[in-house]
Amino acid sequence: MRSVVVVGAGLIGTSVALDLTARGVTTHLLDRDPGVARAAAARGAGLTGPPPRPADLAVLAVPPGQVARVLAAVQREGLARAYTDVASVKEVPLTHAAAAGCDLSRFVGGHPMAGRETSGPAGARRDLFHGRPWVLTPSARSGGEALDTVLELVALCGARPVVMGHREHDRAVALTSHTPHLVASLLAGTLLRGASGELRLAGQGLRDTTRVAAGDPGLWTDILSGNAEAVLAVLDALQGDLSLAREALHDLAHGCPDARPDAAARLHAVLERGARGRARVPAPGTGPRPAQGAPGAGGASQMALPQGVRDGVRPVA
Amino acid sequence: MRSVVVVGAGLIGTSVALDLTARGVTTHLLDRDPGVARAAAARGAGLTGPPPRPADLAVLAVPPGQVARVLAAVQREGLARAYTDVASVKEVPLTHAAAAGCDLSRFVGGHPMAGRETSGPAGARRDLFHGRPWVLTPSARSGGEALDTVLELVALCGARPVVMGHREHDRAVALTSHTPHLVASLLAGTLLRGASGELRLAGQGLRDTTRVAAGDPGLWTDILSGNAEAVLAVLDALQGDLSLAREALHDLAHGCPDARPDAAARLHAVLERGARGRARVPAPGTGPRPAQGAPGAGGASQMALPQGVRDGVRPVA
Repeated sequence: MRSVVVVGAGLIGTSVALDLTARGVTTHLLDRDPGVARAAAARGAGLTGPPPRPADLAVLAVPPGQVARVLAAVQREGLARAYTDVASVKEVPLTHAAAAGCDLSRFVGGHPMAGRETSGPAGARRDLFHGRPWVLTPSARSGGEALDTVLELVALCGARPVVMGHREHDRAVALTSHTPHLVASLLAGTLLRGASGELRLAGQGLRDTTRVAAGDPGLWTDILSGNAEAVLAVLDALQGDLSLAREALHDLAHGCPDARPDAAARLHAVLERGARGRARVPAPGTGPRPAQGAPGAGGASQMALPQGVRDGVRPVA
Repeated sequence: MRSVVVVGAGLIGTSVALDLTARGVTTHLLDRDPGVARAAAARGAGLTGPPPRPADLAVLAVPPGQVARVLAAVQREGLARAYTDVASVKEVPLTHAAAAGCDLSRFVGGHPMAGRETSGPAGARRDLFHGRPWVLTPSARSGGEALDTVLELVALCGARPVVMGHREHDRAVALTSHTPHLVASLLAGTLLRGASGELRLAGQGLRDTTRVAAGDPGLWTDILSGNAEAVLAVLDALQGDLSLAREALHDLAHGCPDARPDAAARLHAVLERGARGRARVPAPGTGPRPAQGAPGAGGASQMALPQGVRDGVRPVA
């Protein structure tokens, strides 16, 4: 891979471009705000402006709601031979891209599982993806050449490719990322009601449980909107336990003494489920292993997709 | 201070005892399970068994629901000249202690703001409290001598004393610790519904938002039961925003296209409140400063209590 165009020079796009430039790939930076592209270039992330001829790959580092529109536009211009995105949701952009008449044989959806609570090129880091999972969601229409090219991108960024169906991806991130983000926001929102003196007692527990709530509300509205149904299913389960906990606390605060043991038992059951759920969270560094051999060795187009992926990959539109 | 009895050789009790022993204070360890006291002693936390004569201070490191009963029992035995506890809730134990006829002039409630997701003497650490806030909630009946003794304990453990009323304390920890713990548990409970393959995509965000949910469900049932009303008030606020978010997500997933911009705006408002709330969380190391001069220099009994504390301190029973 000799040339890449990064469309959208935000945190993720610029981090990708820093990695590629450092690995000797000629990288072009486009952004609807030329000042942002210049800021990324000033950090050593590449050259501003479009490539003189079609690049090997275009990385669309734009919010999920803009992937389909931008893909259609850059494919009309013939910007690259293969295309990927980095959006946190995968089904809705694919459906919209199909409806917009995009050439899906040249497109493989991607989602690098890394981020920071900052945005823009200033927060970009070359090592942002090192050792992290990078999900790829080839559709039934994706060509093997496009998949090979995107696997090479993942390898150049030092990440671990994980191939999944787009619906499977969206369900998984609803559970592991999108709902946790929303719940952290809901929790952090309660802090607006506290007197500043009350917040003096905040410790590491509060900092950890609310850390992700610092993320950009606009971007996260876009992400949650694009995965609303799957997030809602997780929230429905959470609402059930929240209602149980509120009833138990009400009985503990206001019920007769006889009712307290039963209320405490119901509260204990909720906490115990939480402890068991927490025990399922993989420790750092024990994330998914690459689902295939090293990209380029034999070629991804010949690789065996993991079980379930072919099932999860249905033609769209 | 030359001698201390630690009653309850769990994580907190043993950590206190390790600090005291290292600072040259003769420390006695009592636990209803003699094996636990021996395990703490084997770690160098002190001597097992009661002191030969009344100690300067007894530290009751037992769950909140047991503070009043244990205080009454050890005061009957004349175990020490002053008493404190380390429970995460302060009003209910004080009310129960008053009802049990305890000598409240010798008692000052305490709450070291430190902990780990482990329990028992094996997880104890000498530096657990270094630099951390340690809340003291003297009641209107607390004597100056007892307050001085407890301030000396806090100084020996390297912590920063923060004097508050017990109701103010309980409201503050409902907001900054108890509700976040319960919400983390509710979130972690949703992970029981995921296929193990879905959890492969878990990252640091999920690890952070659910970390505290690993805490002991029995202890946390006791803590939340002792502060049920204040936690319920915070949960009621959270429930309001959760209902807004669920309605917005429902409209985004199933509503007509015309309804989407309004639904996205409502979701954005929830996320934006979360970002503003998160911005109120103090950074590490910027916690409360000592509310008075160094303990021992002049004596806490002569110190000026911070504004609001006298108001928050009401006679109990």
